[in-house]
Amino acid sequence: MGLVAGKPARKSEAAPELQYLPPPLKAGDSISVIFPAGYVREQAVLDWGLQLLKKWDLNPVFHQDLDARLGYLAGSDAARAQAVIDAFTSSATKAVICGQGGYGCTRILPLLEGKIPTEALKKKRFFGFSDVTALHSFFQRQLPGLVTFHSPMPATSLLAQGTKDSQDALYDALFGKALALACPALHGRTLQIGRAEATGGVVTGRVVGGNLTLVTALVGTPWEVDMKGAILLIEDVNEAGYRIDRMLTQLNQAHGGKLFELIAGLVVGDVGDDLIDDSKQLGDDVDESDWYWLKLLGLPATLPILTEIPIGHIKEAKTAALGANGRLDLVGQKLIVGVNDLL
Amino acid sequence: MGLVAGKPARKSEAAPELQYLPPPLKAGDSISVIFPAGYVREQAVLDWGLQLLKKWDLNPVFHQDLDARLGYLAGSDAARAQAVIDAFTSSATKAVICGQGGYGCTRILPLLEGKIPTEALKKKRFFGFSDVTALHSFFQRQLPGLVTFHSPMPATSLLAQGTKDSQDALYDALFGKALALACPALHGRTLQIGRAEATGGVVTGRVVGGNLTLVTALVGTPWEVDMKGAILLIEDVNEAGYRIDRMLTQLNQAHGGKLFELIAGLVVGDVGDDLIDDSKQLGDDVDESDWYWLKLLGLPATLPILTEIPIGHIKEAKTAALGANGRLDLVGQKLIVGVNDLL
Repeated sequence: MGLVAGKPARKSEAAPELQYLPPPLKAGDSISVIFPAGYVREQAVLDWGLQLLKKWDLNPVFHQDLDARLGYLAGSDAARAQAVIDAFTSSATKAVICGQGGYGCTRILPLLEGKIPTEALKKKRFFGFSDVTALHSFFQRQLPGLVTFHSPMPATSLLAQGTKDSQDALYDALFGKALALACPALHGRTLQIGRAEATGGVVTGRVVGGNLTLVTALVGTPWEVDMKGAILLIEDVNEAGYRIDRMLTQLNQAHGGKLFELIAGLVVGDVGDDLIDDSKQLGDDVDESDWYWLKLLGLPATLPILTEIPIGHIKEAKTAALGANGRLDLVGQKLIVGVNDLL
Repeated sequence: MGLVAGKPARKSEAAPELQYLPPPLKAGDSISVIFPAGYVREQAVLDWGLQLLKKWDLNPVFHQDLDARLGYLAGSDAARAQAVIDAFTSSATKAVICGQGGYGCTRILPLLEGKIPTEALKKKRFFGFSDVTALHSFFQRQLPGLVTFHSPMPATSLLAQGTKDSQDALYDALFGKALALACPALHGRTLQIGRAEATGGVVTGRVVGGNLTLVTALVGTPWEVDMKGAILLIEDVNEAGYRIDRMLTQLNQAHGGKLFELIAGLVVGDVGDDLIDDSKQLGDDVDESDWYWLKLLGLPATLPILTEIPIGHIKEAKTAALGANGRLDLVGQKLIVGVNDLL
């Protein structure tokens, strides 16, 4: 297991934050494929994803009855929680990937509490996104600094129809030894540099977040995302602009109205393109996205914001390292992790 | 102003909870019509609603520029907040009704803090629902026991196309002197009696809640709905069953997993009919709604639940009294407020 002393999240904090990177996979390893949320809707899509894993010389292992179904869930809460526990505690597999999202991860969090030793978490890289955001936050609450992977999932058409770059990025995250190789820089577009002007356009902090709906669904619970000093990454799908607004408003109000001072920076992945009802009201010379974030949401001018990174419900989605110590470079327009690997 | 000492919310609590019912309107009164959230999308619908108020011999008064628009909002946060403040502090009007919902109420809560004296709140009945749920909770945080009205709104097609019973119910809530006359019993269907078996099928508590999405959007903020000992009323629109599940899961987890022991009972209004993906999986002899609440959500067998009350985004919507001391009668299958009025 790689143990890397990262940069401090905030200059005012003296101690560097520990970062735990579980070991990479090797060809021939077994990998747990779990369904902690929705049931498998298209067997053909799952089959395709499993073939991809096998092409990479990995052996997929299941820990639950794939035919189990309870409403929209892949079986009972108890069975889905047990699959997560078994995946991490099994000595047969070397990593854990969620087959898909849907809905159901938040339901099982109380059943996971105290059931997975932190030593087990340190041994296996964990992959998934969307609803799985709840598990990322849960694991990072169990072991702050644990690096987990915000990645495409093998039972979804997004991976099956994903670009070669997207599939290659998942491969790198599975097999890459150093974090900087597992998760190379994510490039975006700087919306504003904000207070990063004072520090050469760069801010640092732990990378947290994921799907905004799930980040918001954890507010007030014991497993909410720890945003203090963090680089907050968000993406969402099928959510209108007013819903994203409502969620960020709640996150801000739940942090005493100081969220955008509390975080180091904001990184926005794909959020669809339905941010306001009618972009005609803006006139031709105004960019809808810029106007939405800066004028309608009114994010403060001091907040460093990088948008349009390839993360989320898109075919081009790359894999991001949550829990890692990140370096948000507003001049270079990129988010980097594993900085210390390269020093 | 009517001041009614209600029943204690929980038998274990000795002191009865105070309840503040602002005075009713009289023919010829002026009423503030405010837009704290979305902008007016159909002038013709608003015109129709204003005609209804005028037919009832009320004089609608506005406190903001009705042409103002910022994205999906009816103007800036400052202007919308000021309209709310002006409506309550104006000596010219005797009640306040929201023209419509949409989205935007949570954004202005920080701007309302400390700006409306509780004496002003006691003087005017307040009406609205949906996004306006945030204002109901805000006002009840300012003055616990303040009765506010979960009602149809005049700039929405739901009122224009509403049933005569629905329109009559709004009339009663505007003009009814005693609470029991302003908000008569709401009849529903008992899903289970639960722990109310021990108390003759009846539980009591303050009526709280409204739109589930908004109730959830207040979690973690200073204005979240106070659910302790309460009769929790929920409705929602255009939200799939898995979203309702996610919201109730968050509410429960934000209350230490004890929400359904903490509240006196649950009252469910209209939530659409898309609760599970595929009701065929249940077989013909299973009611989808019952199965959803009791088996899929797994609400505890001890929780008193009344469903199908006519509240929400439906033409038949009645007006409910939030903040009032309620009596949930699972044998009579109804929710009653203003009990003491009739003793």
